[in-house]
Amino acid sequence: MPQPRPLTFAAFVMNTASHITHGLWRQPHGEQLRHSELDLWVDLAKTLDRGGFEAIFFADVVGLYGDFRGGWDHHVELGLQIPSNDPLVILSALASHTEHLGLAFTSAPIQQPPFNFARQVATLDHASGGRIAWNVVTNALENGARNFGLDGLTEHDERYRWADEYLDVLYKLWEGSWDEGALLQDRASGRHADPSRIHKIHHESERYRVEGPFLVAPSPQRTPLIFQAGSSPVGRAFAARHAEAQFIQSPDPDGARRLIDDTRRLAQEHGRHPDDLRFFQGLSFVVGSTEEEARRRAEELDGQIDVAGQIAHLGGGVGADLGDLSHDAPIDEIETEGVRSILQWIAEGVPHRRPTVGDIAVFNAQRSRVVGTPEQIADRLAAWRDAGVDGVNVINATIPGSYVEFVDHVLPTLRTRGLAAPAPEPGSPAKTLRGRLFGTDRLSDRHPAARYRGAFTPQSAPTSIAAD
Amino acid sequence: MPQPRPLTFAAFVMNTASHITHGLWRQPHGEQLRHSELDLWVDLAKTLDRGGFEAIFFADVVGLYGDFRGGWDHHVELGLQIPSNDPLVILSALASHTEHLGLAFTSAPIQQPPFNFARQVATLDHASGGRIAWNVVTNALENGARNFGLDGLTEHDERYRWADEYLDVLYKLWEGSWDEGALLQDRASGRHADPSRIHKIHHESERYRVEGPFLVAPSPQRTPLIFQAGSSPVGRAFAARHAEAQFIQSPDPDGARRLIDDTRRLAQEHGRHPDDLRFFQGLSFVVGSTEEEARRRAEELDGQIDVAGQIAHLGGGVGADLGDLSHDAPIDEIETEGVRSILQWIAEGVPHRRPTVGDIAVFNAQRSRVVGTPEQIADRLAAWRDAGVDGVNVINATIPGSYVEFVDHVLPTLRTRGLAAPAPEPGSPAKTLRGRLFGTDRLSDRHPAARYRGAFTPQSAPTSIAAD
Repeated sequence: MPQPRPLTFAAFVMNTASHITHGLWRQPHGEQLRHSELDLWVDLAKTLDRGGFEAIFFADVVGLYGDFRGGWDHHVELGLQIPSNDPLVILSALASHTEHLGLAFTSAPIQQPPFNFARQVATLDHASGGRIAWNVVTNALENGARNFGLDGLTEHDERYRWADEYLDVLYKLWEGSWDEGALLQDRASGRHADPSRIHKIHHESERYRVEGPFLVAPSPQRTPLIFQAGSSPVGRAFAARHAEAQFIQSPDPDGARRLIDDTRRLAQEHGRHPDDLRFFQGLSFVVGSTEEEARRRAEELDGQIDVAGQIAHLGGGVGADLGDLSHDAPIDEIETEGVRSILQWIAEGVPHRRPTVGDIAVFNAQRSRVVGTPEQIADRLAAWRDAGVDGVNVINATIPGSYVEFVDHVLPTLRTRGLAAPAPEPGSPAKTLRGRLFGTDRLSDRHPAARYRGAFTPQSAPTSIAAD
Repeated sequence: MPQPRPLTFAAFVMNTASHITHGLWRQPHGEQLRHSELDLWVDLAKTLDRGGFEAIFFADVVGLYGDFRGGWDHHVELGLQIPSNDPLVILSALASHTEHLGLAFTSAPIQQPPFNFARQVATLDHASGGRIAWNVVTNALENGARNFGLDGLTEHDERYRWADEYLDVLYKLWEGSWDEGALLQDRASGRHADPSRIHKIHHESERYRVEGPFLVAPSPQRTPLIFQAGSSPVGRAFAARHAEAQFIQSPDPDGARRLIDDTRRLAQEHGRHPDDLRFFQGLSFVVGSTEEEARRRAEELDGQIDVAGQIAHLGGGVGADLGDLSHDAPIDEIETEGVRSILQWIAEGVPHRRPTVGDIAVFNAQRSRVVGTPEQIADRLAAWRDAGVDGVNVINATIPGSYVEFVDHVLPTLRTRGLAAPAPEPGSPAKTLRGRLFGTDRLSDRHPAARYRGAFTPQSAPTSIAAD
């Protein structure tokens, strides 16, 4: 029987003070308040790189969550993802201080015209030696839409059609505009590049017209590694077509297995191989040298959770203002049917007979938490791996503390169990992120972007222009 | 009599192999071919930081120059600003490896929606401790416009109205959305920020609708230092309103004096102080230990200039295909009146009785060149300073060679003459770029952006929301 593949680890962060579990920024040893300082991220990236994490993964949004108690005052008081800084522009600093770490950021088509976005990303892929990943999202926030000139949120499925169109332009620029071998940089002849191998793309579609050529020569990966996190049917179909890695948040290994099997099947229907897609489960960890110590630390953390913040985040994400609900109200007593059914859906798995709004909000922070000794954590991770999960997106309680602890106290045990690969030796040859995950620098031939390779090459192009 | 102010020095570069003087990338000791590698720029930034340069200044374009001999094949062969990488996304790496160096990049409104651009820039201003400058340009290239969904180039003066509108949104986000003191980060009370001091901007204008609030807390400079380089009447009026530093390319100190006096007068008409605007002259340097050695090196450089490349760049920038003109044709024999008059305008100062197309193209590369011993260079720079120039944008023949040479062999002599300030001591308190140039971190109260300070603050805002 072949040895099962080790899990892959990414640090799940956001360039903000209060990302997922609200209230935790108040901990004295949490440094996430320093998120505007580059050193926080550089130091974290170094820790992850030395520890053998495959990537740092920056979540992002470009607007306020929906209202809570009729407005956004509480968001500001809580620090609920405001302020938040751009993740993409700090990646070159992280690249320059690390050797092997993948650098994943989140961006939505609404944020930048494709030509500029493609150029920024390709520049970073060069700068990092091919370690860039892009988490493709479609902005799901009303305020985000109104920060970008729209009246309000674009309808859900239409957002995915938009993302499809955006990716189409990007693939043409990244994969099609420059043929292999176009860059010559030949000092002797004075030929810098070969014009017969560089092409305009003349893209025209509903939202975009882009002439090209692309301005950046092919970077190590060309197209960055594509992450996606959609869980709706349209979102999963999108992931099945485009994604190389999917970020999932399943309540348990069985749920993950069903989701993964389904999505791999979908990917096959789109002409891809089941293994062309990797799945990262979001999990947080509370470690102790004994189970008792771990449980005590978990209880301490629970006491620091800002319940109102969790409710604001929960409602703000699903577009329902839950601010007037009592934390103690059982959700089956909620009168508005839409709100009730959303909460009941979220409440699946909550270990209370009649969960309240507060129960759900806090449980939402706890449900993906693994509490125990390193050995117990290894057992739990083995179950996730056996369910088909390829990697873990490690959620933090503190930055950098949660990751220092994971690197120093959990990964060594995981390695003895074959659940984590050894960290690359410092100074060992660096791979691209795709090379590290899939063994190849470039997108698989089965990926839809591959159709643009050579697609703009004239059939009988001259190989050189006349000499002067 | 007060001691004249020392000059300020910036390195004028572009993230490309062949920026201004074409053919020089072929030199064996030039490393500009490595422009996609982060280390080239990190190492250069360290050299400039240690040498006391005030800034590194990245030029940029987002498309091909206009046709040469009916197409763009020669652009590619020559490397004429293709490939070129995005300058903005590499700045955080340069920030993390330097202490004092200002980081200036170029961007046009066409490139990004204002909300995303404002956030990227503010994130970088935080990450660098307030060392970011933005060179505001309006894309002047047909292909650039067609890379961003337009049919073709927007009319010149309309581009500046567009830039005015773009800046208006940005100023609201950077200066108005967050009042001073909004960020609390108070672990004890759990109040992360004060909602009464953070505001939506509700911007609506011809091209932009942006609701806000801004997502980034005020960075050290809030608005980055604003550079501008327009030389047309509309461009100079724009600079007089918005710019804090203007990049000029005058043929001689007298021309600089006239331009500077005129623009300072214009600035005053816009309610600003003449000294609110600083002027950087673009100059390149060929240094020798004797005048003879310097002249010999300059001649060697001349021999490496690609004349066709200079002509392609010249014509591509002014929108005329000069590819069919013989290099040896005197320009007064050119039949197309538009082309002839543009070239005659450019030819002003060319030391030939009847200059040819080739003469002009090469002279264009030489006209801003200072050749001599460090002492002779100091004499020439004294003349520029006496004409009112505040700083020099140092053009290179090789990267990093030209800057290493300038730091090691020219700046020490300039310092003995009071023409350059001492380099900041390593480890000495870092200033913002605006602090270094103007003695203040924030935009002057006389700047048009200052009107938005406090502009969105309700007159009787509550200072806190009710506690839970």
